[in-house]
Amino acid sequence: MIKAALSVLLVLAAVSSTFAKYIPKTGKRIPQTLSRGWGDQLIWAQTYEEGLYWSRSRNKPLMVLFHLEDCPHSQALKKEFSENNELQRTLDEDFIVLNLVYETTDKHLSPDGQYVPRILFVDPTMTVRADINGRYSNRMYAYEPNDIKLLLSNMQKAKKLLKSEL
Amino acid sequence: MIKAALSVLLVLAAVSSTFAKYIPKTGKRIPQTLSRGWGDQLIWAQTYEEGLYWSRSRNKPLMVLFHLEDCPHSQALKKEFSENNELQRTLDEDFIVLNLVYETTDKHLSPDGQYVPRILFVDPTMTVRADINGRYSNRMYAYEPNDIKLLLSNMQKAKKLLKSEL
Repeated sequence: MIKAALSVLLVLAAVSSTFAKYIPKTGKRIPQTLSRGWGDQLIWAQTYEEGLYWSRSRNKPLMVLFHLEDCPHSQALKKEFSENNELQRTLDEDFIVLNLVYETTDKHLSPDGQYVPRILFVDPTMTVRADINGRYSNRMYAYEPNDIKLLLSNMQKAKKLLKSEL
Repeated sequence: MIKAALSVLLVLAAVSSTFAKYIPKTGKRIPQTLSRGWGDQLIWAQTYEEGLYWSRSRNKPLMVLFHLEDCPHSQALKKEFSENNELQRTLDEDFIVLNLVYETTDKHLSPDGQYVPRILFVDPTMTVRADINGRYSNRMYAYEPNDIKLLLSNMQKAKKLLKSEL
C-alpha cells in the first residue's frame, strides 16, 4: 500500500517536473508588457513599421513615444499619461500608439536630437508632424507631467489629417 | 446624519471617478506581453534594431521568430517552444530573443520569402545565418512542433560564433 502510494508520488513528481515551466536562476520575472505602463488598456504597435502600417490602413495618426524605464522624467510623465482618462480614451479611439525604448533608424523621428521623453506625431500619409511640438525650445518634442493639457491639444491638431479630404 | 453620509459618498464617488482607470467601451483588455506566449520568463527585445544592439554588445546570437497570433501552425509551435525547459533556458542564458508579428524592412530576414512561423539566427557580427535552417526545402526556416530537437541543435550551431576568436 505504501509502495503504491510512493510510486504514484514519483510519477506525479516526474510529470510535474516535465511540465514545470522554466524559471531563471535569478528568480521568476514579471512578463514585460508592450504598454510598459503607459496605458495597459491600449493596443500598442510593437515596431515603427507596424505602427505606420496601421496608421495608413486605419487612417489614424500615429503617436510615437520615446522613453526609458530608468529615466525619472519619463517615469513622472508616464504616471500622468497613464492615469489621464481623456488622454487614454482619445488615444484608444483615434490614434495608433507606439512606445519605444530604443531609437529607430528613421532620422525624421528625431528632428532636434534623440532624448527622452519625446513624443512625435505621424500623419497617415507617413509624414512626421514636426510642426506639432511642446513648450521647450531646446527640446521641442519633450513634455513634462504638467504639460498633459498641451499634449491633449496637440493630439487634436494631429487628428486634423494633412489630407483630410481623402 | 444622512446628509453627512451622503456627502461622504459623493466625495468618494468623485474621487474614485477621477482616479478610475480608462476602460474601453468593448470591455477591459488583457495587457499585451512582449513574449506573446513564447516564453514569459525571457527578456524579449522589442525591435530588430534593439535586438541587433544587444546581440553585438553582449556577443550573443540573436534569434528572430516571425509568427502570427491567428496562425494555427504558429500556435502549435508556440506550445512546444514555450513548454520546453531546455530551449527556454538556453535562450535565456545564451541568446538575445525577438518575436515579431510584422515584417521588418530588412530583406536578409526573409531569404526565401515571408511566411510564419519562421526562425532566423543572426550572429553578433550582424550576419544573418541563412546557413542554419530547418527540414523543409520549400520553407527553409519553418519549424513544426515536432522539430524542437532540430531547433535545439540549430541553436548550438548559432552559438558557435562566426568570429569566435574575438
